[in-house]
Amino acid sequence: MTRPLAIGVAGLGTVGAGVLKLLRDNAGIIAARAGRPIAVTAVAARDRSRDRGVPLDGLRWYEDPVALAGDDKVDVVVELIGGSDGPAKGLVEAALAAGKPVVTANKALLALHGGALAEKADTAGVTLAFEAAVAGGIPAIKGLREGLAANNIARVTGILNGTCNYILTCMRDQGREFADVLAEAQKLGYAEADPSFDIDGVDAAHKLAILAALAFGRPVDFSAVHVEGIRNVTALDIKLAEELGYRIKLLGIAQAVDGGISTRVHPCMVPVSHPIAVVDGVYNAVVAEGDFVGRVVLEGRGAGAGPTASAVVADLIDIARNRATPVWGASAAALSNTPAVPMDQHTGAYYLRLMVLDRPGVVAEITGVLRDHSISLESMIQRGRSPGEAVPIVLTTHDCQEASMRGALARIAALDSVLEPPALIRIESL
Amino acid sequence: MTRPLAIGVAGLGTVGAGVLKLLRDNAGIIAARAGRPIAVTAVAARDRSRDRGVPLDGLRWYEDPVALAGDDKVDVVVELIGGSDGPAKGLVEAALAAGKPVVTANKALLALHGGALAEKADTAGVTLAFEAAVAGGIPAIKGLREGLAANNIARVTGILNGTCNYILTCMRDQGREFADVLAEAQKLGYAEADPSFDIDGVDAAHKLAILAALAFGRPVDFSAVHVEGIRNVTALDIKLAEELGYRIKLLGIAQAVDGGISTRVHPCMVPVSHPIAVVDGVYNAVVAEGDFVGRVVLEGRGAGAGPTASAVVADLIDIARNRATPVWGASAAALSNTPAVPMDQHTGAYYLRLMVLDRPGVVAEITGVLRDHSISLESMIQRGRSPGEAVPIVLTTHDCQEASMRGALARIAALDSVLEPPALIRIESL
Repeated sequence: MTRPLAIGVAGLGTVGAGVLKLLRDNAGIIAARAGRPIAVTAVAARDRSRDRGVPLDGLRWYEDPVALAGDDKVDVVVELIGGSDGPAKGLVEAALAAGKPVVTANKALLALHGGALAEKADTAGVTLAFEAAVAGGIPAIKGLREGLAANNIARVTGILNGTCNYILTCMRDQGREFADVLAEAQKLGYAEADPSFDIDGVDAAHKLAILAALAFGRPVDFSAVHVEGIRNVTALDIKLAEELGYRIKLLGIAQAVDGGISTRVHPCMVPVSHPIAVVDGVYNAVVAEGDFVGRVVLEGRGAGAGPTASAVVADLIDIARNRATPVWGASAAALSNTPAVPMDQHTGAYYLRLMVLDRPGVVAEITGVLRDHSISLESMIQRGRSPGEAVPIVLTTHDCQEASMRGALARIAALDSVLEPPALIRIESL
Repeated sequence: MTRPLAIGVAGLGTVGAGVLKLLRDNAGIIAARAGRPIAVTAVAARDRSRDRGVPLDGLRWYEDPVALAGDDKVDVVVELIGGSDGPAKGLVEAALAAGKPVVTANKALLALHGGALAEKADTAGVTLAFEAAVAGGIPAIKGLREGLAANNIARVTGILNGTCNYILTCMRDQGREFADVLAEAQKLGYAEADPSFDIDGVDAAHKLAILAALAFGRPVDFSAVHVEGIRNVTALDIKLAEELGYRIKLLGIAQAVDGGISTRVHPCMVPVSHPIAVVDGVYNAVVAEGDFVGRVVLEGRGAGAGPTASAVVADLIDIARNRATPVWGASAAALSNTPAVPMDQHTGAYYLRLMVLDRPGVVAEITGVLRDHSISLESMIQRGRSPGEAVPIVLTTHDCQEASMRGALARIAALDSVLEPPALIRIESL
């Protein structure tokens, strides 16, 4: 065996400690599969006194992560600090500039600065690897970028945020409301104290931007992603969805459509018979549809120390074996310039739930507005009767344009007989 | 871009023609992802006159596939002839001896001769790639060997034969018997004229032997795999399984157990809530459980021209990019010698269906035999009453040893009141 690959790890939170533990616990098989031992020689973190559950004796310690890039005895830099800017970006840039391969779990960094960083990696002729940035332990980047590389991809669909999937699964199983389940998830440590990155869909959108760039061979474009979170999903909508044969999931979808590529993250109704409908709790899934391979589903744990460390070390083994792939699957010159298609031009079916005053003529008013916007109904359900009180009306539409639906919705929301803001959830025919 | 990677394809059946079509249809993205064009320059097949749906003009043609290995203008040999010996083996050996990388879809060849071929590839310092040999278009080899490389794998479970899964799915959905569905599948081209390789579990066992070697880092050992097919599965057992909360699937399972590694292919009852239970029709799935990553499920089309070609070309792109991995994930010296554990030592739960004469004392006789073999019952159902006639009795057991169960079964089968050979299906707690 050749000499060990020397690793510097920046960030010793849950994931950083997990990587150290994995490299120690599975050192034997990792060395066999990497063709050489992989050894941590330096770390960067602020608090030297905290017990991280792994011994740190004998490792060089940096308080400034960027200094790690300058350590002559570090072959590969592992960035686990997080955040799209600041020290994480500084460290990755410094490491690439020093000609060192980088492994990162940082989805925000890749989604926002992935184009520029890929150029730097390309110029330096070193690897910038990020399997852990999308879908945790699932080999989604490798599966898509290498495993399905021969295919034109028509669509990539993902359950990309475990916190949201956990909350939606609890809401369904226990018939509870969003705020209630979120509070519990925060107590259990499944949701952050400030949960907005997760529940507002931003985290999923970072990951989707990365998957879309890989699937369609185009520069990463986070700003093009339409993003909605799950704050407005109610237990009632989940129950009504089940009655209609659907499950509500927060999906990220990147799709080839007329005029270019559409990328969007929002709650979706998916048929219960689709494999993604039964991916529950903290599990993530990535579904890719290729012209030759057909549908491929990859499912596993999307977060946590163990799964994320598994992905980080897989990248390190690739580097140890000299297995290299351009950041975005092809050289910058070979990427396409297919335009992004804005959400206004989205075409699809919709679920619309309205709380209306139970009085004659209400349905006629609402369906009249939909007709005015050329929206054709697939079904209408008015459950229960309470004359003079609020009752839910559920409408599902055939395919129509997002812009028409938005126009109709504004008018419907303004009707006297409509008592609450309408709930709109897109129906995906996966 | 550098000069094209020149490919020689041996075998122009469905898969061979699919590879040529894929390389032609998706030439642009393949070149971008491979960093250079991939071009077929020579082929080997017997019948020059057959229309294969792809133009073959300008390609050098060999009637003897082994001669392809000697073509100076061929950089990589693609073996799609099939069969564990004969010309397929001859070609692969000749190509490796000539220092040429080989891509093959040949599971039988890898399962039976994979150890010796890996040594030849290692000696020559070239790649022997076989993504297409297991689970068609699913990046299962790449996922397991690279994506999950940092993990100790506890168990790999797979639906590895699309023909069997299709037949079992039809039997369940339509309440039909095996022979009837098989005959139809043969007419539709989903099953071979001689279906025994598929339905007797041999094909799945080849694939499982390969997965087991990769998962546990040990030499491939087809002879250790316990193999049973699906000929004896009845519509009644499938119906009773549903009532008990199970689906019947033909699974390949490689598992770390006391004393070593157990590898087996047989019909299993799996809980309907497990992701593998809902993988239906011609879809395959591979489930790996790693110590850090947890459970990862990979699902997709397990056979057919498109999915298989997708996997073959993924291997070619790896070769074009110089991404190399030892055949069995580590060098021969780094493989372990964990012993194989024979099926007699298998421990698990069982479903047992007996057709018995409906008369007093029968249940006491049967449960007495089970007690004599230290087998503890979980449930017993006797459905319907027809005094003096045949009625089914269904028993499920707690975990017990295969050897005990076999002993008990022989005695039960010999009882006067037991009218048909007992049906035994293992219950997997996945």
